[in-house]
Amino acid sequence: MLGTMMDRPLLVSSLLQHAERVHGDRVNLSCEAGEVRRAFTYRELGSDARRLAAALSELGVQHGTRVGSLAWNSDRHLAAYFGVPGIGAVLHTINQRMPAEHIAYAVNQAEDRVLLVDADLLPVARQIVPATPSVQHVVVLGDGEADIPGVRSWSFDDLIAEAAELATFPELDERTAASICFTSGTTGLPKGVVYTHRSTVLHALAISLSGGVAISPERSYLVACQMSHVNSWGVPHAATMQGARLVLPGPHPSPLDYLKIITRHRPDMLIGAPAVMGLIRHEYLARRGEFDLSSIRTVWMGGQTPPPALVEWWAGHGANTVNGWGMTETHPMATFSQGHTDQGRPLPLVELRVVDEEGVELPWDGRSAGELEARSPWVTGSYLGQTGPSESFHDGWLRTGDVAVIEPDGTLRIKDRFKDLVKSGGEWISSVELENHLMEHPAITEAAVVAVPHEKWQERPVAWLVTATDVTDDELRDFVRSKFPSYWVPDAFVRVDAIPKTSVGKVDKATIRKQQTTSSLAPSAG
Amino acid sequence: MLGTMMDRPLLVSSLLQHAERVHGDRVNLSCEAGEVRRAFTYRELGSDARRLAAALSELGVQHGTRVGSLAWNSDRHLAAYFGVPGIGAVLHTINQRMPAEHIAYAVNQAEDRVLLVDADLLPVARQIVPATPSVQHVVVLGDGEADIPGVRSWSFDDLIAEAAELATFPELDERTAASICFTSGTTGLPKGVVYTHRSTVLHALAISLSGGVAISPERSYLVACQMSHVNSWGVPHAATMQGARLVLPGPHPSPLDYLKIITRHRPDMLIGAPAVMGLIRHEYLARRGEFDLSSIRTVWMGGQTPPPALVEWWAGHGANTVNGWGMTETHPMATFSQGHTDQGRPLPLVELRVVDEEGVELPWDGRSAGELEARSPWVTGSYLGQTGPSESFHDGWLRTGDVAVIEPDGTLRIKDRFKDLVKSGGEWISSVELENHLMEHPAITEAAVVAVPHEKWQERPVAWLVTATDVTDDELRDFVRSKFPSYWVPDAFVRVDAIPKTSVGKVDKATIRKQQTTSSLAPSAG
Repeated sequence: MLGTMMDRPLLVSSLLQHAERVHGDRVNLSCEAGEVRRAFTYRELGSDARRLAAALSELGVQHGTRVGSLAWNSDRHLAAYFGVPGIGAVLHTINQRMPAEHIAYAVNQAEDRVLLVDADLLPVARQIVPATPSVQHVVVLGDGEADIPGVRSWSFDDLIAEAAELATFPELDERTAASICFTSGTTGLPKGVVYTHRSTVLHALAISLSGGVAISPERSYLVACQMSHVNSWGVPHAATMQGARLVLPGPHPSPLDYLKIITRHRPDMLIGAPAVMGLIRHEYLARRGEFDLSSIRTVWMGGQTPPPALVEWWAGHGANTVNGWGMTETHPMATFSQGHTDQGRPLPLVELRVVDEEGVELPWDGRSAGELEARSPWVTGSYLGQTGPSESFHDGWLRTGDVAVIEPDGTLRIKDRFKDLVKSGGEWISSVELENHLMEHPAITEAAVVAVPHEKWQERPVAWLVTATDVTDDELRDFVRSKFPSYWVPDAFVRVDAIPKTSVGKVDKATIRKQQTTSSLAPSAG
Repeated sequence: MLGTMMDRPLLVSSLLQHAERVHGDRVNLSCEAGEVRRAFTYRELGSDARRLAAALSELGVQHGTRVGSLAWNSDRHLAAYFGVPGIGAVLHTINQRMPAEHIAYAVNQAEDRVLLVDADLLPVARQIVPATPSVQHVVVLGDGEADIPGVRSWSFDDLIAEAAELATFPELDERTAASICFTSGTTGLPKGVVYTHRSTVLHALAISLSGGVAISPERSYLVACQMSHVNSWGVPHAATMQGARLVLPGPHPSPLDYLKIITRHRPDMLIGAPAVMGLIRHEYLARRGEFDLSSIRTVWMGGQTPPPALVEWWAGHGANTVNGWGMTETHPMATFSQGHTDQGRPLPLVELRVVDEEGVELPWDGRSAGELEARSPWVTGSYLGQTGPSESFHDGWLRTGDVAVIEPDGTLRIKDRFKDLVKSGGEWISSVELENHLMEHPAITEAAVVAVPHEKWQERPVAWLVTATDVTDDELRDFVRSKFPSYWVPDAFVRVDAIPKTSVGKVDKATIRKQQTTSSLAPSAG
């Protein structure tokens, strides 16, 4: 039977082109130290991206060439989001907070030929370049140049000032790689996730659907999650497609910077990790009366479950907290919740299931806990450099490593990371549930529970706590017993000044476990 | 470079499966004569679709088999929307208002093997079956059976009652044909447009984006546009994906039926042609005080520009009028406007351009008028049975036959159909602009302007008018001259009881021209 639809590919450049033509006058902001460094329209973004594409081609960047970025949230980084994939090259966004050896490992894995580097991150580039032979060019995202032996140095601003705009982005196969992001690697080396043009466009559509995340035209988004990690949760792509205003905080944003930007430029939505939202709250309170948060109607907290006290505080300032579930491997959005007490329901085209230890699917009954698995056009099917079967996949589904139940209506409740469960005397203890409960105690501002090896019980929980006021161990034991069986009571409550965090702001349980297991614990659980 | 996203296809069945699992309890309504015949959840819809798929397989329906539907908006038709494409077969929705010879032509072109027929449309099926040798089975959408010589007859309700649910829909290539709709054929024979799974899913995503058409979860849609024409503008697919409530009016809905449904079931949005909205208004006024339209917040009018008076009337009842531009070939939504005075801006992934008579692209300046061309993953690339190049396409773009300008911000303004322009003495006269102006005259309720051949001027405009009160030709001439040059004044104002309409409710200019050109006109234009 003849007759069909046009075979038009889903391309990252089509999002930009739409913005140039239909939202051309819409103004975005790129900030530095809480001040606007540049207000730029989508038409200007298009011009930058087209010039960057032309300039990179001159440097030898071709279809498939990897271009690394060591950069904060800015107009220049955003131009790379479109200019690099636009010509079929691949933007490898490097998490600048990873240890240098992990960064070098990632650059070598990706075989980056060019590095785009913010001026303040040049020391990192200097440190890794000797160990990353694929790198031939370093482009400083500004008007200066680097002086790094063994590579050619360029200024981004000079490059695009001299380049002519690429008139037409090439028509690529939509399954062409568009960007790479490495997992944060809390266990072992980071793994590279390769996003395609197709997955990027579909994810942008999915997070712009009404009733969900709903990245919307005319609204204004302060992006406090890093463009160097999972494409800032897809917000830059979706906002461009929808003609929303992006407010990019620039290098090393401090809580004070955020408060200045919010007060002066009045974004509707604030997007980032709970840790950042907590710091903004802290700074706001320290400078009582100086700043105005009233424009923020929604706080989207991702990465981990927001503490209830933080949610309440923002609600007191008129901002609803929303969240979702996802990971680097899922682009990241797989579910979304209009609230904060669960992880919400799957987005369209995302399939979720929980399976038992034999891999058999469990019912959606809100009780049957198992490992969460995901399948979608925007879930990774294989990692960068993966050459054979991987334990991360099961029968075509991604194994997430999360323990979850699913309610009959599809609502996801993450119970724990598999590796964070405490196996005590043949019973499972959820570290996440313990943490959430502990954080409801008025004296506790932060809590992390880890398993430590135990002669008799195999493993026992230990709690690390940041406390605001004094509280005795006995009081804490009673508090835990008020909700859980007594064998859930941690063997120790360790007071610390701060909980160790990973490069993306998550609780770093590997470090806690390491430090904790150097001490020995007497058998005490009953 | 290894590492990529999962290669999951975009399938119509994935929309249904999402609804079954995530919106399973959401209740839709299927009506008859203004009463609810059946309230059904998405889980029940899934069960029906899976049983229908199994039953059709038993009748020999396979991958690629065409299944025609001669049916109104109902739960059974909706089950076919998912059950037929779910197994790789193709649902050919037949516009029941087309003349029988066009229906037979379409069935023969599509080579339908099975016809799904609403009981009241069996006379049409009886009339065409002798001329459509491909048809082997007629399934009556109800609990009765047909008695048509030469084909086997079945009852839909019996078939699905006896069938076991298909557990898993097959994984198809997303470019597999999902449905066929024929153009309404105002000139010549209708042409078949073949929608794919990919285009259907992408269109569903596009019309669910926030800030646009925004088919939204939890909202309720009274679908007054026919499921037999361009998939009811994609609303059934998008509503299923989003978990919105569908309110389907059933066979031969009268204005009174709509009023009953709106008053009792309080849908948020009413979707259909301006003609239907006008009839509902008329019936409401005739039964003053009996019905309540207050639930309707939005009236989405498509197919043609809504008359300003109708828009104002609905606004007076609290309902905002929205509209967009599209055609059978564009699935249909290509643009959308939150208002009604223009056709809005392109949806993401839709490219538009206007070209001059040599095919050269014109600027988006709000002034340069040319033929509108469209390109998108949900625009047709070739017609059913098309074997060679077609005049409908130009360099990979669809030629729409519409004359338009595009504003610098992408706002589309359709000026006319090419064939409805009047070429008088070397100048173009827009019949649409004349009609819109005439309908602003208080005495005129409907107007249609056509070109008739003229010895001296080549063509001259003639206006057909439905009037509410008396008005002289002189008054009308003055009224036209108040806005347009005098050569725009129609040579004749013909009073009629009703303007002829096509099977989809559009003004039937072909018929008007035919009737008008049998009369002769004296040269009078200056």
